[in-house]
Amino acid sequence: MSVLEQVNAPEDLRRLKIEELSQLAAELRELIIETVAQTGGHLAPNLGVVELTIALHRVFQAPRDKIVWDVGHQCYAHKILTGRRERFGTLRQFGGISGFPCRDESVYDAFGAGHASTSISAALGLAKARDFNQEDYAVVAVIGDGALTGGMALEALNHAGHIKANFIVVLNDNEMSISKNVGALAGYLTRLRTDPMYHRSREEFEALIQKIPAIGPRMLRVLERLKDSVKYLVVPGMFFEELGYTYLGPVDGHSIPALLRTLEKAKGLKGPVLVHVVTRKGKGYPPAEKDPDTFHGVGPFNPLTGEVYGAGKITYTEVFGQTLVRLAEEDPRIVAITAAMTTGTGLKTFARRFPQRFFDVGIAEQHAVTLAAGLAAGGWRPVVAIYSTFLQRAYDQIVHDVCLQRLPVVFALDRAGIVGEDGATHQGLFDIAYLRSIPNMALMAPMDENELQHMLKTALLYGGPCAIRYPRGRGTGCALEKELRPLPFGQALVLRDGRDVSLFALGNTVAAALEAAERLATQGIEAAVVNARFVKPLDASLLLRFARRTRRVVTVEEGILAGGFGSAVAELLMDNGLGNVELVRLGINDTFVPHGAPALLRERYGLTAENIVAAVTQSRRRLRVAARKK
Amino acid sequence: MSVLEQVNAPEDLRRLKIEELSQLAAELRELIIETVAQTGGHLAPNLGVVELTIALHRVFQAPRDKIVWDVGHQCYAHKILTGRRERFGTLRQFGGISGFPCRDESVYDAFGAGHASTSISAALGLAKARDFNQEDYAVVAVIGDGALTGGMALEALNHAGHIKANFIVVLNDNEMSISKNVGALAGYLTRLRTDPMYHRSREEFEALIQKIPAIGPRMLRVLERLKDSVKYLVVPGMFFEELGYTYLGPVDGHSIPALLRTLEKAKGLKGPVLVHVVTRKGKGYPPAEKDPDTFHGVGPFNPLTGEVYGAGKITYTEVFGQTLVRLAEEDPRIVAITAAMTTGTGLKTFARRFPQRFFDVGIAEQHAVTLAAGLAAGGWRPVVAIYSTFLQRAYDQIVHDVCLQRLPVVFALDRAGIVGEDGATHQGLFDIAYLRSIPNMALMAPMDENELQHMLKTALLYGGPCAIRYPRGRGTGCALEKELRPLPFGQALVLRDGRDVSLFALGNTVAAALEAAERLATQGIEAAVVNARFVKPLDASLLLRFARRTRRVVTVEEGILAGGFGSAVAELLMDNGLGNVELVRLGINDTFVPHGAPALLRERYGLTAENIVAAVTQSRRRLRVAARKK
Repeated sequence: MSVLEQVNAPEDLRRLKIEELSQLAAELRELIIETVAQTGGHLAPNLGVVELTIALHRVFQAPRDKIVWDVGHQCYAHKILTGRRERFGTLRQFGGISGFPCRDESVYDAFGAGHASTSISAALGLAKARDFNQEDYAVVAVIGDGALTGGMALEALNHAGHIKANFIVVLNDNEMSISKNVGALAGYLTRLRTDPMYHRSREEFEALIQKIPAIGPRMLRVLERLKDSVKYLVVPGMFFEELGYTYLGPVDGHSIPALLRTLEKAKGLKGPVLVHVVTRKGKGYPPAEKDPDTFHGVGPFNPLTGEVYGAGKITYTEVFGQTLVRLAEEDPRIVAITAAMTTGTGLKTFARRFPQRFFDVGIAEQHAVTLAAGLAAGGWRPVVAIYSTFLQRAYDQIVHDVCLQRLPVVFALDRAGIVGEDGATHQGLFDIAYLRSIPNMALMAPMDENELQHMLKTALLYGGPCAIRYPRGRGTGCALEKELRPLPFGQALVLRDGRDVSLFALGNTVAAALEAAERLATQGIEAAVVNARFVKPLDASLLLRFARRTRRVVTVEEGILAGGFGSAVAELLMDNGLGNVELVRLGINDTFVPHGAPALLRERYGLTAENIVAAVTQSRRRLRVAARKK
Repeated sequence: MSVLEQVNAPEDLRRLKIEELSQLAAELRELIIETVAQTGGHLAPNLGVVELTIALHRVFQAPRDKIVWDVGHQCYAHKILTGRRERFGTLRQFGGISGFPCRDESVYDAFGAGHASTSISAALGLAKARDFNQEDYAVVAVIGDGALTGGMALEALNHAGHIKANFIVVLNDNEMSISKNVGALAGYLTRLRTDPMYHRSREEFEALIQKIPAIGPRMLRVLERLKDSVKYLVVPGMFFEELGYTYLGPVDGHSIPALLRTLEKAKGLKGPVLVHVVTRKGKGYPPAEKDPDTFHGVGPFNPLTGEVYGAGKITYTEVFGQTLVRLAEEDPRIVAITAAMTTGTGLKTFARRFPQRFFDVGIAEQHAVTLAAGLAAGGWRPVVAIYSTFLQRAYDQIVHDVCLQRLPVVFALDRAGIVGEDGATHQGLFDIAYLRSIPNMALMAPMDENELQHMLKTALLYGGPCAIRYPRGRGTGCALEKELRPLPFGQALVLRDGRDVSLFALGNTVAAALEAAERLATQGIEAAVVNARFVKPLDASLLLRFARRTRRVVTVEEGILAGGFGSAVAELLMDNGLGNVELVRLGINDTFVPHGAPALLRERYGLTAENIVAAVTQSRRRLRVAARKK
């Protein structure tokens, strides 16, 4: 029996001998690598925190003590150690365990996550709730140095330091967020790790101070003043101390004894404590250590060689990246901005080719958007590439800084719609609803990767705020036209004519609509297929023409129905006295979509060709509640 | 001729003798006090920066040099000095000058504002645009210590320090945001201002170091090490220096010579510079100095006595505050959270009565919401009181931390709908669209202040995420029922029956709908009036019943139409095969609403009883585009 097999709950871990813990770490790594090689997932961040997770569960008594994982992409060891070892093989599969902490999944998951920088706020809330309850358990937030560049983490750090909350922030410093870290704070952390002037204990310094002799009354005064200063200021982690935290560290995050010692010490202190732990992303798996960027979030791979299984077709992300480079070669005003996702958003080539015109601002979507607004106000043409779900973080900046001032910022929303295995926190379902309600905003979605090219050119020519939403993953495999051409602004494209029903499809659902039309044709039903292209401005005249002619319309979108694309069509029809057209809206009906394979999710949530066919062929009555709620 | 009358543009200011500048300051103050006493506006913040504004326009050459005002509620002196003196009497009036910087209004307004914490990002964008253009003008962000608690300001500070941008951040430190400031950073700023150990020049310290004699090889080593440390660390503004900024200050923000000296020095430096200016809110007007909270944003007042003109009726804000105290007395789990708006949101009494259960987190809406989620996860019942427009800042946290986890957080959205004179950045027009698309969220709006009481009780009993939106200002003057009672969840209220048309009204538009029904009755048209109460869940069965019966529906809401309440009704009708009902949606049609008196704006944007009457009586054809776009 392996050590790991003896651990069914954290209390088992606390019964192990100290010597067994490093064996446990090795076994955890093996299980994580084996599983992720099959399921895909966040490998490098999880390998980096194996020892830290063991130490946390040894020192703290979860679920009584609360551990809050920031982002949550580093919770695999935690899940395995808290009763989910046997289900770990179902990681990120539909119905299996989530790749992120999830309150519904386990009492050990004290707070859910997926987006960055939330843990300090949540932990502070849990800590104050504990105080109100007059209980005395510990609350620990584990946050990476990357997530610490997010504004809300700094808001929380500032507030918790001020109110002297009793809780512990474990800063997991791996010098990376997802890409190489940025920000002045990161520079400071590096100095803390490496500069001997910073890297010394408070005790050592106080001893040093004692040795200074005082000679003469004037020098005495000078030295007293110095001593005070030094005592107050020259301690490691001054930055955090100024914010009210007791700073402990830096501690080697791969040394279990050092971690145990430091966490025990932290547990015994009053007030906010910051434990600075230095880890290595991908630790223990050479391919991931060597290329933590690729192995941050990864698809299935060969565990022996580290070779990531590729697929043939080009991704939307790649097409976006290539096209932006081409456009930037023609137009020197184009600049690109990412929030710690250079690789994920496809900007790696751009960053290499135009380093001066490229900004990685860290996990700081709010700043990214208003920085873009400033650049646009200064005459430049910024393209902000942020995943649909993460752009939610900058909603106010889109309204207040970009759209209100009609500044020509282009938003490239990768991972819009169903993203699959990353689950509920990562599905890009809300962008249509929240963007189309903002005045001055234009919003498009390409039916395939070829159209994405043209849309990017169209957006950059537009001269106002403009967003393009496109899906995660591989394109359709269509040919990429060589010449980039602007699309007629605000115009939809008729792909197939038909007199019985109109299918208005958006983005990648166009393919399903075309397939549905083929199948309907075999049943004698002639379905028109319109690639909407624009959610805003809607091509009102074309859509109304088809609605009038066919009297039946089905809209399809990978997004939430309330306020979405189909909702815009409903508004259009009602505003134009065409309410007696029969409208069925397919999309996500008022629910969060969990993790699972995209194809499976599309099937479950009613977004396939089959669903479209059913929407057309079933009786009116049965269609009334069109989109299924799971 | 006064000194001020000689200044029609900043270059005139630069021609004045130094001695004339303090006279200019006095005249600016007089004009600001006189004008705001009539128009209302942000008095205290503007009085605090009069000398700073003069000094900025003397040292920098706007509009070539760019000055970016954070929040923008301190730009009055700037507006007066940049060609808008004669129009200053139209401040905040419809068609007059805005109370905030506005790119459309003047080339001197380099970047618009209204919400907090955006200036560093925008200024960084302008600075990089300048570098790309190979130009050499200066870019200055002016940000208060309050706005510096906002996460995005910290994101930007971190990024700009890292990339060593050439620009200047003027930190206007008045120890207040709107209420008394919070946060550990604020504590640090206080120490910078007041602690002699911090408050000394770098030069002074280096001189001190030189005086330490080195005695013996061992002591020499010790002292060398000390000297290095001290030289590196014990300089004022270490916190900012660590982030990559050259720190200058603190400087007296009411001494023009000191400001000129320091700003000139800043102008000459390379890389990011932070100038720490200490000012006093309300400076020069004793009532505002004494009570800067009241005079932060104020209605018309008597300039001689400082007496603020009151009105009879109780405000929604006051009813919210009173009711929450009552509920909190009954239910010890209730806690309240504000983001630097204790007075504005009506929580002053709560804060006094339950100091332990009250959190003012600073201008940090994101943290506020996730802190609430943490408290709710810990068993408490947080009420987050944030103005509709500012809650946009926390959209992602509402989705990701509250709704996804179905945590019982109550959102009290004051200032929802038309807010009036504060203008485009402050109108609360988007909350219906962005909240109703989030699964698990409930959303209500009371027709009057009496219903607000009951809704607050309803929301706290609900047990899931729940928002209440209510308008700025005075209520209807209705009687406040003594006993608080929960409303039937998800049910609308029929206020008047009628067979010809159904008016579905939300929130404060119910009054206009009732008035319209009265007027329609005189024309022989019987209009039913339904107080919708809930946007989500909609009372589908009641609304459908009325729609079926009357075949004509008018929806009225103070919010953006796309994705709003009327949009939800359109979805409902279409989903239920009732599209042939004639629907007219009144609301704000795809436009930002500028500043002006609320009554005037309601008239201009089609939200009055008259508009409802017109919507009913005009021919179908003419009604198709119902809401007017100004």
